[in-house]
Amino acid sequence: MFENKEEQRTSIDQVGEFKLIELLTKGFKHYHKETIKGVDDDAAVIEVSNHQQVVTTDLLVEGIHFDLSYMPLKHLGYKAVMVNLSDVCAMNATPKQITVSIAASNRFPLEALEELYSGIKLACDTYQVDLIGGDTTSSNKGLLISITAIGQAKASEIVYRSGAKPNDLLVVTGDIGGAYLGLQILEREKQVFQINPKSQPDLSAYDYIIERQLKPEARKDIVDLFKKLEVKPTSMIDISDGLSSEILHLCKQSQTGCNLYEEKIPLDPQVIRTCEELNLESTTIALSGGEDYELLFTIAQEDYIKIKGNPNFTVIGHMTDKKEGAHLITRANQKVQLIAQGWKSF
Amino acid sequence: MFENKEEQRTSIDQVGEFKLIELLTKGFKHYHKETIKGVDDDAAVIEVSNHQQVVTTDLLVEGIHFDLSYMPLKHLGYKAVMVNLSDVCAMNATPKQITVSIAASNRFPLEALEELYSGIKLACDTYQVDLIGGDTTSSNKGLLISITAIGQAKASEIVYRSGAKPNDLLVVTGDIGGAYLGLQILEREKQVFQINPKSQPDLSAYDYIIERQLKPEARKDIVDLFKKLEVKPTSMIDISDGLSSEILHLCKQSQTGCNLYEEKIPLDPQVIRTCEELNLESTTIALSGGEDYELLFTIAQEDYIKIKGNPNFTVIGHMTDKKEGAHLITRANQKVQLIAQGWKSF
Repeated sequence: MFENKEEQRTSIDQVGEFKLIELLTKGFKHYHKETIKGVDDDAAVIEVSNHQQVVTTDLLVEGIHFDLSYMPLKHLGYKAVMVNLSDVCAMNATPKQITVSIAASNRFPLEALEELYSGIKLACDTYQVDLIGGDTTSSNKGLLISITAIGQAKASEIVYRSGAKPNDLLVVTGDIGGAYLGLQILEREKQVFQINPKSQPDLSAYDYIIERQLKPEARKDIVDLFKKLEVKPTSMIDISDGLSSEILHLCKQSQTGCNLYEEKIPLDPQVIRTCEELNLESTTIALSGGEDYELLFTIAQEDYIKIKGNPNFTVIGHMTDKKEGAHLITRANQKVQLIAQGWKSF
Repeated sequence: MFENKEEQRTSIDQVGEFKLIELLTKGFKHYHKETIKGVDDDAAVIEVSNHQQVVTTDLLVEGIHFDLSYMPLKHLGYKAVMVNLSDVCAMNATPKQITVSIAASNRFPLEALEELYSGIKLACDTYQVDLIGGDTTSSNKGLLISITAIGQAKASEIVYRSGAKPNDLLVVTGDIGGAYLGLQILEREKQVFQINPKSQPDLSAYDYIIERQLKPEARKDIVDLFKKLEVKPTSMIDISDGLSSEILHLCKQSQTGCNLYEEKIPLDPQVIRTCEELNLESTTIALSGGEDYELLFTIAQEDYIKIKGNPNFTVIGHMTDKKEGAHLITRANQKVQLIAQGWKSF
């Protein structure tokens, strides 16, 4: 008999990001009672006196998360900050500070990094966030940005992914699907440009969706609005991966099911028009697209009166008992199961 | 006349890391009164109620900061945490939480990342630090680790780089130069191995200095010891770059000069012996080596009695008026100017 002497090698792609973090961080203990929440929400929560602090971090890698052939450096700096502020907002906290670390190959001169930082500064000034530290180093290839954002809230204000109850209303801010479609248009134009570098693209018909891709905004205004309306969501998450994936996170961590109504999903007219042009199903785009950085949350039914008629909010469904599962109710009134990549028919 | 249409391009190497951060972050305002300290110390400081929090972040890039041909992944994980905890300790604060983000190419299977995380976990368990978040993504090339560490202290306990006064004593913990020499030995063995892969190196004569390079410790014990001894340093920094560079940081930010006595610099016998073997000047190694992660601090003269005779501490000099400059007093009683890379003769 031969022994198998080959070391076990499991490729990371096989594992998937969520599972990977779970695998790598299992067995880590928390030593401090101030550490209220660890790795399984939009941000961690630390208690300091009777205030709580939320901490979140994101890593953006050239060629994986962004393509500099259509992403201007200033926009990239702005967006890198937004991605993190959005996570702070998704905890119903106010972003206060960020650290920014950068690794850049010698392809990037000082002027390029200054351009990147001008976007970071615009984000800091617009959102009143303080840059408090960071690290700058060289890399062997490409550009990498690592940002950590810190926010604050009273302990009673923090909203987790886990608080939704059956019958709570499922609500989304703004409209969705635009950022993903903007990316499709930019990818298309890149290919056109590679074939014919003299082509002069007219992108004015796509201005809204391209802006959604290149310059997303974190919904800090919604955190303020909740205070004004005296609404505290029962659960909340930001839409970075796509509506269906985010809904499933809320369901899983709140131990509920849900019904999502296809006809209620808020879409911008430009999203609908571009979907028709590209022969894409707008519901698929909304459910699977991602990068919209809108907020998805649940509220108790009695709070409906407080948000009713507010143009920022669209009620798109409601939570159910866990055993009922998570479903999309289509325009044709069919009930299909929601999965992370969209939905599947029975 | 021709116009110079070339865009200005300044290479980052020309600028240098400290200057680069200064250039990129100038013009950033602080909007929050809770943001006590920004980018120019070992860590940032945030006030929450009457406690203060310190935040620091570091980015480690394969091929720039570490070489996996002699750095085992478990050690790398441990060291990556230490580098950050050391910055927290250098503020006289107690490390409490970390976030860990990783970008890895498909060269790294799950098992490799698990090995890395086993080192991170050992560091968390040994130093009682909570892993509270992070991000895991793919990269196009190599491995990159970005860690943010958070620590706490009472506002009155925090020690900055800027508080030293003339006549304060300059003190260092442990001994220095070992980590750099350990690296030289590992580099040498790597070259031997490349020529003759069957060579069996006996590194037992270098065990201490190799451990200093591969498994440094953050001096959290010193932060505890300061409390016990009722000593509060007037300024402090950790030794990551080399003694002379760190001394100059304290002098610059405290607006003082200093006299450093060559004969007082604490060196381990293995450091002295290896320097002789490699024909290196031990003072040069101590001043320029780096990566020892010991603490360098100043205390008021009246506190000398509290640290006297404690084997953790060596008084290596004293601060002077700024106009006297920063100097090394050699064993031959010559006074030479300290520069970031060591010293220069007059």
